[in-house]
Amino acid sequence: MAIEDIDSSRLERNLDALCKIGKNRDGGIDRQLATPADLQAREWLRAYWEQMGLTVHSDAVANLYAVLPGREPGLAPIAVGSHHDTVPNGGKYDGAMGVLLATELAQSLQDAGTALRHPLCICSFTGEEPSDYGVSTFGSKVLAGRLGSADLMRQRHAVTGETLAAAVARLGGEPGAADQNRLRPGDWACFIECHNELGRVLFDEGLAVGVVDCITGIYRETVEVTGTPNHAGTTQMPHRRDALLAASLFALEFEALLRAYDDPQLVGTIGHIEVWPNASNIIPGRVVMALEMRCCDPALRADVLQKMEAMTRRVADQRGVHIHRRLVLDQAETQMSPLVQKALLAASAQCGQPERVMASMAGHDAANIARSTPAGMLFTQSVDGLGHCPQEYTRAEDIYTAGRVLLAAVQHLDEELDR
Amino acid sequence: MAIEDIDSSRLERNLDALCKIGKNRDGGIDRQLATPADLQAREWLRAYWEQMGLTVHSDAVANLYAVLPGREPGLAPIAVGSHHDTVPNGGKYDGAMGVLLATELAQSLQDAGTALRHPLCICSFTGEEPSDYGVSTFGSKVLAGRLGSADLMRQRHAVTGETLAAAVARLGGEPGAADQNRLRPGDWACFIECHNELGRVLFDEGLAVGVVDCITGIYRETVEVTGTPNHAGTTQMPHRRDALLAASLFALEFEALLRAYDDPQLVGTIGHIEVWPNASNIIPGRVVMALEMRCCDPALRADVLQKMEAMTRRVADQRGVHIHRRLVLDQAETQMSPLVQKALLAASAQCGQPERVMASMAGHDAANIARSTPAGMLFTQSVDGLGHCPQEYTRAEDIYTAGRVLLAAVQHLDEELDR
Repeated sequence: MAIEDIDSSRLERNLDALCKIGKNRDGGIDRQLATPADLQAREWLRAYWEQMGLTVHSDAVANLYAVLPGREPGLAPIAVGSHHDTVPNGGKYDGAMGVLLATELAQSLQDAGTALRHPLCICSFTGEEPSDYGVSTFGSKVLAGRLGSADLMRQRHAVTGETLAAAVARLGGEPGAADQNRLRPGDWACFIECHNELGRVLFDEGLAVGVVDCITGIYRETVEVTGTPNHAGTTQMPHRRDALLAASLFALEFEALLRAYDDPQLVGTIGHIEVWPNASNIIPGRVVMALEMRCCDPALRADVLQKMEAMTRRVADQRGVHIHRRLVLDQAETQMSPLVQKALLAASAQCGQPERVMASMAGHDAANIARSTPAGMLFTQSVDGLGHCPQEYTRAEDIYTAGRVLLAAVQHLDEELDR
Repeated sequence: MAIEDIDSSRLERNLDALCKIGKNRDGGIDRQLATPADLQAREWLRAYWEQMGLTVHSDAVANLYAVLPGREPGLAPIAVGSHHDTVPNGGKYDGAMGVLLATELAQSLQDAGTALRHPLCICSFTGEEPSDYGVSTFGSKVLAGRLGSADLMRQRHAVTGETLAAAVARLGGEPGAADQNRLRPGDWACFIECHNELGRVLFDEGLAVGVVDCITGIYRETVEVTGTPNHAGTTQMPHRRDALLAASLFALEFEALLRAYDDPQLVGTIGHIEVWPNASNIIPGRVVMALEMRCCDPALRADVLQKMEAMTRRVADQRGVHIHRRLVLDQAETQMSPLVQKALLAASAQCGQPERVMASMAGHDAANIARSTPAGMLFTQSVDGLGHCPQEYTRAEDIYTAGRVLLAAVQHLDEELDR
């Protein structure tokens, strides 16, 4: 007999308790990787899980796990979770909500005196957010074999200079064993991450939850514009080859090119710019920009890149400058497991939620776990679309809905997998 | 009987000698304010002038002067000169040519065994170029009362932290006396500066020399664009208020607005830009730009500023951002003395040069001297319009022409003034 309900007030109490750890004077949360608040949150989780009677352990990069035994021997666990670190001045829900929802699933199963066929493994991954150590989705990247011991020695904190390896050791990990710390196919039966959307799709549609079918690919390049630095007084307007004006035109043309597709799953940003000599009385001679594009469709991405070629030539010709583009990152999109999607959609319907399948335009640990394991994600509504700020908010009733959807989905998968 | 010729080979030899002082490995000249090369150039000039038998002195901010006596007692000197400092990796002609042309006038008069009615005062001003002490046209600004002792104590070298006062003391000045170091009306009968154009007007027209009627006004403001920083993945294109894209549009509209006037004496530049948070995965939330406009006509300047008001509102509305503009500098244009212009034009015609009257779009010491004294400027052609670089070049025959024009103009003025 499936159980259908979770204890939403217990879940709210736990969210309230965890969000006190790292809270700053502005009401935001500072719980970045390897800070005292990160350590304190880990202690809180360990103590809570141990008090539940779960088997708690951590791996070589200090990813945390708590296991509720299943009733059928020899089955790999169903893993559910997210992360407990935050961006600087972050919010209450990003990461923590997913970890505490997984915890609540285990408690609800315990309360009902029932057990799944599979063990249930609650996860909280190390350092999911971008941090001063220069890596994001750190713990799951190591599990996916995308980072190893050498990277841990190389990456250093931008301010303190501490290596990521030393930080991991402080968190109780074994940085030297990172290369062996891989998640292999079959280690987990499947993985589900529940996360707030951080965008406004569900908010605009008035929905509590959505099922993710794809985590966006991320494409980055460096765009270097070379013009001629010159005297800002004696160089008449028609004789200028101003690298900043050329870069401005490039940025606007890039935006227009993307907007012409009118596709909510295609975005592009120029977020970083440097100008030389950057003096008020000298015409800019050189500009370097970081360009990013995210989309879920490789054919679309290829089409955009082809149009960018022509656009780049046009801007360079029109402005008399040289534009050099250099690839920095071309990370493919990650499809979520159809099996896990199906279970989440069935569970949503069971909880009275309209069917909403959507892409994740942000990166998540689930994209790394999906390399070895059938993985899926459930999004909750971010009110006003806000994320990575103290104002981020997911309504208690939506979290309650997400909990019931997860509980039903996990039970569906528990029934279907390993038959 | 007027003398008409100068010794162009002596002048070339002197230019070759002075440009060895501060020459770097790239062939450029590093003779910035208060550097060892500045000191060495001053020693070279003093020694040269003393060997000519002139009376050499310097003032409280180490402006250098050498005086050739006139034949009529009680007359104020006719001053001719420029500066001997350079920008980092500067050229051979900027400043030095004007000082050595003035020197050559005095020598030619001596050679001819003749004297002017007025004394002839050769000047070399201190720190004309922008320097690490944060001031340009320094020596002449003090003479004009635009800077005083307090400023000398406040301005510090960006790297060493030395005060401008301490630098001036090292050059043999008396920084505490800067407030009294003013040039009053009547102290000089008039002033002429000869300088390379640093632009391409004379080059494009194939002319050796041009007479300056106005030194450009310089208007500067800080333009701050405030949008909304947001997640570069989860924020769909239509929901963005990207401060960098708004700034890009502003920059292009500013350029278009200026170019529509098609006026060679109107230029504008955005040379400096800062972006927050300037991270590749965050939509820019704030941009601060330094905007500069130079023109010689206050009515035109007012017209541009009025159109900028409307343009700013249009860009802010279109992009959903806030744009705040703050005035930083509004330095009026400086008209050159009609008397001195007339003398220079008559002298040019006498030397067979077409009449060319033009604005100076760069600032010069003459603009400061003009506050108290009838002042004028003669430009020589900059080949390819180059300036502030090792490649700057003025042909020997054009310098020779300039020397003869100056000599004739000084003799005209000597006849006309103080009758």
